[in-house]
Amino acid sequence: MRVLVVGSMAYDSVQTHAGSVDRALGGSATFFSIASSLFAPTAIVAVVGDDFEDSDLQRLAGRGIDLSGVQRVAGETFRWGGRYSRFFETRETLFTELNVFSDFAPVIPAGLGVSDVVFLANIHPDLQGSVLDQVQTPKFVAMDTMNFWIDGARDALKRVLARVDLLFLNDEEAFSLAECGDVLTAARRIQAMGPATVVLKRGEHGAWLFSGDDAWLTPALPLDDVVDPTGAGDSFAGGFMGYVARAERFDPATLQQAMIAGTLVASCCCQGFSVDRLEAIELADLAQRRKRLASILGPTDAEL
Amino acid sequence: MRVLVVGSMAYDSVQTHAGSVDRALGGSATFFSIASSLFAPTAIVAVVGDDFEDSDLQRLAGRGIDLSGVQRVAGETFRWGGRYSRFFETRETLFTELNVFSDFAPVIPAGLGVSDVVFLANIHPDLQGSVLDQVQTPKFVAMDTMNFWIDGARDALKRVLARVDLLFLNDEEAFSLAECGDVLTAARRIQAMGPATVVLKRGEHGAWLFSGDDAWLTPALPLDDVVDPTGAGDSFAGGFMGYVARAERFDPATLQQAMIAGTLVASCCCQGFSVDRLEAIELADLAQRRKRLASILGPTDAEL
Repeated sequence: MRVLVVGSMAYDSVQTHAGSVDRALGGSATFFSIASSLFAPTAIVAVVGDDFEDSDLQRLAGRGIDLSGVQRVAGETFRWGGRYSRFFETRETLFTELNVFSDFAPVIPAGLGVSDVVFLANIHPDLQGSVLDQVQTPKFVAMDTMNFWIDGARDALKRVLARVDLLFLNDEEAFSLAECGDVLTAARRIQAMGPATVVLKRGEHGAWLFSGDDAWLTPALPLDDVVDPTGAGDSFAGGFMGYVARAERFDPATLQQAMIAGTLVASCCCQGFSVDRLEAIELADLAQRRKRLASILGPTDAEL
Repeated sequence: MRVLVVGSMAYDSVQTHAGSVDRALGGSATFFSIASSLFAPTAIVAVVGDDFEDSDLQRLAGRGIDLSGVQRVAGETFRWGGRYSRFFETRETLFTELNVFSDFAPVIPAGLGVSDVVFLANIHPDLQGSVLDQVQTPKFVAMDTMNFWIDGARDALKRVLARVDLLFLNDEEAFSLAECGDVLTAARRIQAMGPATVVLKRGEHGAWLFSGDDAWLTPALPLDDVVDPTGAGDSFAGGFMGYVARAERFDPATLQQAMIAGTLVASCCCQGFSVDRLEAIELADLAQRRKRLASILGPTDAEL
């Protein structure tokens, strides 16, 4: 099955203890699509400015990513700048220049209107809804969001939540959306808003999958060489959605496996700036990480 | 095997969203010993003031906890007061009155000098060392500490670290002691200071066991009814140490099982004020929690 992602393509300027990059390839759709394309054909709908480098489009096209939905318009590409604290405890946004992204109105090309697996990256919930209006009977739709929409466009967000199968979000977003402070209550309340499945991304603490009445934890792979965590969440979602698209199944057992795929891909993302490390992933590399992930879980039972 | 714990007995005043308690039974040795006594005979060495209630001593003695090492001296018992934020993200210390605890000089009664399993709760590292001077050839010694000693008594702390088998600590303490920001590096550096085993307690995110070159994660049991997390760390350590004392083994496989025991006991502690919920634990209760803990771990492997 093909994966369609609608989101941002951007140039990021990032400073971490490991160094810095300027105008490096970024954006939710970029990170997501590279991760997703490891497992399944992937198409992007996004907008870039006339400053966007052909070579960057080629980096994606060279992986087989369908760019027919990428509009190039006059103006500058979305830019974001940020700085992480020494040990990545905090991230400071230095600037956000929406540029051409501020007028983004996703148009799904005819050739992508039939997409079975759809990921609505973090854009205004009304735009997420307009994408769903343009896609014919998708089999599995997931979305991301952020506190800016939870606080500022709650009604619109709830309308689109009612139309999706899965919501990816982090602790802060979940607690804000659900108005509570524990993951169990948050997941139950969010599921009641629409998505049968909730994936709570907790960074180095792993991720929870809530499906129906069940909850499962997938630990993150511990790393001692984080370079830049920018894009890890979108890489997680990309690995997850690519995995389910390849499996062509959306049952809880498949979603549990997809959690592992997302976890491993996200771990790679953190080990380089921009998409550098993500681009270099090979399946043999993931297989090694998979073994390491399995090894960190001791027995789950004990004779008490 | 018997477990000997040296630490504090206290009266706590705690405010949480669930209510408040005043002069409620607390202290590291108290929480630890109740947890430990679920699995193995346990003895406390501590000091209390002449205000300490006989009925509180009886609560412990009634569980078979050996109180022959509890000194009662003139003055007031150690008191601590704290307030937790709505969702337990932060804890504010309202007061700390060391009282009789400020002159605590642990004396191990002759009858407890041969103790195989020893836990040095959070006291001055020199006092922890003096306990080890008084105990004959213990088979397994673990200790706790806090940032106050890491920052203010680092050399003394390093001397006692070199003499123990296991250190329990949390993220903040580990990163401060190891002067780094990731758990893998922190564990390696702390192991190089002496303890072959490091247990990193991460609250709701579970706990890591580092033993030799291996690392295992035990998730915490997710709770939607936390009342008061005071004492959860000491309860974890108590469940862990009681488990190994009962097993009479200290190999990695046993320590992994002990992580589960600690995790389950700590989850109980959080569901009541003071030791109220901890006292009420029955093994059948733990067995139920054990099943729930096993159920939250999905598959640890996936076909990628």
